[in-house]
Amino acid sequence: MRVQVAIIGSGPSGLLLGQLLGDAGIETIILDRASREHILSRVRAGVLEEGMVGLMDKAGVGTRMHAEGLPHDGFSLAFDGRDHRIDLFGLTDGKRVTVYGQTELTRDLIEKREADGRPTVYEAANVTPQGFDGESPFVTYEKDGITHRIDCDFIAGCDGFHGASRKAVPENAIRTFEKVYPFGWLGILADVPPVSHELVYANHPRGFALCSMRSQTRSRYYIQCALDEKAEAWSDGRFWDELRRRLPAHHAEAMVTGASFEKSIAPLRSFVAEPMRFGRLFLVGDAAHIVPPTGAKGLNLAASDVHYLFAGLMEHYKDRSNAGIEAYSGRALARVWKAVRFSWWMTTMLHRFPDTGDFDQKIQEAELAYLTHSRAAETVLAENYVGLPY
Amino acid sequence: MRVQVAIIGSGPSGLLLGQLLGDAGIETIILDRASREHILSRVRAGVLEEGMVGLMDKAGVGTRMHAEGLPHDGFSLAFDGRDHRIDLFGLTDGKRVTVYGQTELTRDLIEKREADGRPTVYEAANVTPQGFDGESPFVTYEKDGITHRIDCDFIAGCDGFHGASRKAVPENAIRTFEKVYPFGWLGILADVPPVSHELVYANHPRGFALCSMRSQTRSRYYIQCALDEKAEAWSDGRFWDELRRRLPAHHAEAMVTGASFEKSIAPLRSFVAEPMRFGRLFLVGDAAHIVPPTGAKGLNLAASDVHYLFAGLMEHYKDRSNAGIEAYSGRALARVWKAVRFSWWMTTMLHRFPDTGDFDQKIQEAELAYLTHSRAAETVLAENYVGLPY
Repeated sequence: MRVQVAIIGSGPSGLLLGQLLGDAGIETIILDRASREHILSRVRAGVLEEGMVGLMDKAGVGTRMHAEGLPHDGFSLAFDGRDHRIDLFGLTDGKRVTVYGQTELTRDLIEKREADGRPTVYEAANVTPQGFDGESPFVTYEKDGITHRIDCDFIAGCDGFHGASRKAVPENAIRTFEKVYPFGWLGILADVPPVSHELVYANHPRGFALCSMRSQTRSRYYIQCALDEKAEAWSDGRFWDELRRRLPAHHAEAMVTGASFEKSIAPLRSFVAEPMRFGRLFLVGDAAHIVPPTGAKGLNLAASDVHYLFAGLMEHYKDRSNAGIEAYSGRALARVWKAVRFSWWMTTMLHRFPDTGDFDQKIQEAELAYLTHSRAAETVLAENYVGLPY
Repeated sequence: MRVQVAIIGSGPSGLLLGQLLGDAGIETIILDRASREHILSRVRAGVLEEGMVGLMDKAGVGTRMHAEGLPHDGFSLAFDGRDHRIDLFGLTDGKRVTVYGQTELTRDLIEKREADGRPTVYEAANVTPQGFDGESPFVTYEKDGITHRIDCDFIAGCDGFHGASRKAVPENAIRTFEKVYPFGWLGILADVPPVSHELVYANHPRGFALCSMRSQTRSRYYIQCALDEKAEAWSDGRFWDELRRRLPAHHAEAMVTGASFEKSIAPLRSFVAEPMRFGRLFLVGDAAHIVPPTGAKGLNLAASDVHYLFAGLMEHYKDRSNAGIEAYSGRALARVWKAVRFSWWMTTMLHRFPDTGDFDQKIQEAELAYLTHSRAAETVLAENYVGLPY
């Protein structure tokens, strides 16, 4: 079998790239080692920058996102027992974010791809990008005991941090940068109304907390926890008690609690691989970079990668120029590093670090005090949160 | 002998406070362990915020500062071989800084104090603030073998980091916060015209460099160096060569070199003592806090301390209220910590840290890339550099 672009990974970045390319008349196939059901059941973040919203519209899959997604014009920083609202809309000349679960977005993209009759292979084992250093790359995979080969012009590695694409690159061709944070996030999903109609990011002596949501009836709450905590040790009651302790009183008192239906602990990590292009193989999204969830940049960075790669591939196929392809890694990484810096900074400002000395703790408090008294500093936070321009 | 306010230390903060109080009819004495000549020969920073300029005017000693000081509307960040100008004036609605050596400012204040006939005791040994926990504080000192005692209402400890004032406070009454940076600044003074009419702060793989000045014919240059360097090991030629290597080519080529007449290495430290009031003893300026010189906040923080303390003492003497005195420590520290944070941040962004990993180095580069592409981020830098409001 032959396609123009073989896409490894059926997450948002692979699906979005496939949709944009397909609509432009470029043939694609998507290969994923997981099942359709598994992909649709993954719980992920859901704060979309306008760039991501725009790409969903461009891909013709924005209808449900606009109908059901919640536009957010601001969020709260909570510390010292008080809320301080960051007026995203006012600080960025009218930009906002949209709260729409990644699970929903993935479903919209999968259903559109199916309606368009474009091929996806699920449960493809041992997916391996090959030959990308030369002119004739191909991808092999196994399914039902048979080895398949897809020949192609390009391979898009959209298969996440643990995927095969980055691992296929020779070690000496890639440089990686990593920071592991000394804590995790214990998160729950519960069908209760959110405590606030906007997100609340709380810095408290007991640790960070985040009040987020998937909809007006489904809340997503997180608390910072030690890396060696076990989710099983946290009954719903214990979680709600701890969450309330970390929030200003008016939120703690207003909070509606209930049974959780998802509870898990995620570590926090920053990771970047450079470059993001290896001949005819491109790394996209989590395959190339990971950010801690503070600031919700992971999915949005995948979107900007797709934007740059789609533009480069269009230049190749339509304008017969490889300039955009050759610029992909540099363009994507310039934006990636700014978002990695922002996520690191927001994480550092809002969490309690177990080994932080007194001086660093006071610097953190001074930063929050300054931030909430300076329009320029609020604007820095806001313009990064809504997303820097592509 | 009895005065209303005994001031320990004849540096800018003690002199400025004495001038403001004297003009308001409050009797002061200034005690300093050093000689008049020694005080006037000390080389110190000289970038004044508008708040400091305003206090000099208020104290009636601004004439020479306005005539000889250099108003600066911007400065350069140099990295990756290029200059990026920070337009202080444009970013802060018309604020600027004034370059005027602390030595000159001290001379203006000393000469005014002498002209006004207000007392200063130089070479006062073993100056010791006492009884400040009660209603009747006093200061003792020795001179020419005789012990003297000054009774007073209040004691202002303006005697710097190594002075007697902070040391007089019982250890359990004070909390200190400190960060020592793993490098120093090797600085020279030379009577050559500055390489640029504005300051140049350079981040270079070989280390930080700063092109500053005292006047249009006297330059002050610094390079980051290891803590174990010795100034004697740096000939003028070696210094100029190293400085040029760290600057963009157009500066390196334009630099006028010459014999230095001062060369020394200073360590970089952040330090804050809390609180800044102990009964009837106040700590002012370096006696309570030290910042690294990046961003030139040391003298300007002393000025804001003087502002808050003078206001508090006026409330006490004129309005018979101690509210301002009681608020002094909190008001001063709120501004101090913001400047400590800013100095720490600017130091962190511009220096090469010997133990920094690859990730942190990339974060630093991303910060500079972001900063120089965001008006909001430039405004954050500018508004802190010209000085946050009192």
